[in-house]
Amino acid sequence: MVGAGQLARMTLPAAIALDVRLGVLAATPDDPAVRAGAPAIVGAPDDLAALRRLAARAAVVTFDHEVVPPEHLRALEAEGAVLRPAAAANLHAQDKGHQRAALARWGLPVPPWALCGDGGALRAFGEVAGWPVVAKAPRGGYDGRGVAVLDAAAAAAWQTFPVLAEQRVPFTRELAVLVARRPGGAAVAYPVVETVQVDGMLREARAPAPRARDAVPLALAVAEAVDAVGILAVELFDAPGGLLVNELALRPHNSGHGTIEGCATSQFENHLRAVLDLPLGATDLRAPAVATVNVVGGDPRARRAAALAVGGAAVHLYGKAPRPGRKLGHVTALGPDLPAALATARAAAAVLTADAGPGADAAGPGAAGGGARE
Amino acid sequence: MVGAGQLARMTLPAAIALDVRLGVLAATPDDPAVRAGAPAIVGAPDDLAALRRLAARAAVVTFDHEVVPPEHLRALEAEGAVLRPAAAANLHAQDKGHQRAALARWGLPVPPWALCGDGGALRAFGEVAGWPVVAKAPRGGYDGRGVAVLDAAAAAAWQTFPVLAEQRVPFTRELAVLVARRPGGAAVAYPVVETVQVDGMLREARAPAPRARDAVPLALAVAEAVDAVGILAVELFDAPGGLLVNELALRPHNSGHGTIEGCATSQFENHLRAVLDLPLGATDLRAPAVATVNVVGGDPRARRAAALAVGGAAVHLYGKAPRPGRKLGHVTALGPDLPAALATARAAAAVLTADAGPGADAAGPGAAGGGARE
Repeated sequence: MVGAGQLARMTLPAAIALDVRLGVLAATPDDPAVRAGAPAIVGAPDDLAALRRLAARAAVVTFDHEVVPPEHLRALEAEGAVLRPAAAANLHAQDKGHQRAALARWGLPVPPWALCGDGGALRAFGEVAGWPVVAKAPRGGYDGRGVAVLDAAAAAAWQTFPVLAEQRVPFTRELAVLVARRPGGAAVAYPVVETVQVDGMLREARAPAPRARDAVPLALAVAEAVDAVGILAVELFDAPGGLLVNELALRPHNSGHGTIEGCATSQFENHLRAVLDLPLGATDLRAPAVATVNVVGGDPRARRAAALAVGGAAVHLYGKAPRPGRKLGHVTALGPDLPAALATARAAAAVLTADAGPGADAAGPGAAGGGARE
Repeated sequence: MVGAGQLARMTLPAAIALDVRLGVLAATPDDPAVRAGAPAIVGAPDDLAALRRLAARAAVVTFDHEVVPPEHLRALEAEGAVLRPAAAANLHAQDKGHQRAALARWGLPVPPWALCGDGGALRAFGEVAGWPVVAKAPRGGYDGRGVAVLDAAAAAAWQTFPVLAEQRVPFTRELAVLVARRPGGAAVAYPVVETVQVDGMLREARAPAPRARDAVPLALAVAEAVDAVGILAVELFDAPGGLLVNELALRPHNSGHGTIEGCATSQFENHLRAVLDLPLGATDLRAPAVATVNVVGGDPRARRAAALAVGGAAVHLYGKAPRPGRKLGHVTALGPDLPAALATARAAAAVLTADAGPGADAAGPGAAGGGARE
């Protein structure tokens, strides 16, 4: 696995159960998956020599992030490495312009968009779509970084091109659907979750969520369109005119952490099964409601005992050094209904982040256009 | 953790979630927990120097087996190591005579027994208790090894003393109750499971099971009597006169593997919580029925794909080299009722052991007096 963050870390238990030897390319020896015991090659994800060393030892190469340069992925494939997802599929998460074009070509719904090469194009798009518009860096943005909301004046002053401009679509809620898909196309979808973003970063995920009848077929169609292998996360806007695809991630995703306790097979296990071309596991919810709350900031390791005293909370800590605004863990709770599950998960997350200062736990409606990572 | 077998291996995911640094004393670098990524000191469990190296690096020392010589445990404690469970508690699993005497002293029900120092004592016990009797090695037996059923002639020829002789009690079924207990005495019990032994080795565990009203208080009383810390497994006979304690294990136990998927908190997570003196997690069943079937013999790794095609089966492989009669993994299934859960778990286990020869999957009633390990 390229990357050794919390996604790789949480893939390890599934690898242990299935007797899969999971090694990682880690940026540092302190990365979460390395601290959890994954054999590691230490190297940057844009270091082609390090990537080659990883690929030489692996039957299959997969990913916990999308920051490997696309040309490196193509080079690895040319040299015979088996990438899952493949370089061409990964590009849909790495290059938002490419993704928008591909989805549009398949007739899949996205907000009105234009890849603008200069200020004139940006102004022209805004005048048609209506101000303000959402401006996204075509590459490298995540967790709300690389995303701005521009009125006409801000657009006139904008300097970074090309930029992906999108209409700021009003929406009722944000949803996410995870799909696990094998190389041959066999796929299963997870129950739809409603996500709540704070400052562009996922804060809560709640299942069950509305719009399953539309969202699941849409996510499966996206998986086929982009030829996803492994987990694909499809983030959606529930907009007045119907569902719109907001973001894609071709890897396990923060919106699916609740699948560890909440579903018959976790997203991490199904990611491994999919990339190894093994039969996929069932995705049913194991309780009427599953709520996950991220632990952002604070010093959760120091408050672990107090959080474990919150009955019914499943606490996950990522072994990362505390830093304000950093995702350090999450809490999942199962319950007889969503209010009960949310109350439990929020209570434990609040304990874990009690040092993080005011507002650190608050989850409210996020701005349109925020991307979310993991 | 002293020992690096499948119990240590399955403790790793819980350690990852709670950001616990779990290192092991491994007999070989190929032990299951080492292959899964646990930092290891390689040394035999009766090597006091190796035990000291482990203890020097650990805030708390715990165990995946009971084979450390009791005098070594006492030496470590004298040198300041924190053992959980303590040396005195471990002795109840290490020395069956000591255990029987302690349970009897507390008025806890055990089959009629005698620690016999010679053939005369053994013959005298058999004449009172009735032939045949069950003969157990006071130390070192597990998985049915060290256990024999003796008629009067076999007893007359018996050479190995002392021997723990027990009345061969008729029983309706075997049950097991896991208790997680903290140093201060706070404890939670898991739902009772019915166990099925084959040749003295646990083959199936089924929850829910009858006799919860009697079995849970009995198990909690045993935990207090032996001052268990961490997981204590209490194996019981459901006999005509009431429940009798058959065996104890002061560590995670094979009868509790279904808690990974089947309970709100796995036995492995509660073992860590307990030995680290953290609040214990809920033990409720997550489904109406949970069945676990051991994978014994065969070459399950080679048949993994076929087993994963069995819907609803959670497959766990231990990363051990195949060998006839060796526990190589287990399968758990949740279901709406026990027949459904059992059918799923057995189907997947049968696939995994299809190379193991006739009868390898068959589970039937076991003989009285078989001890069970893990």
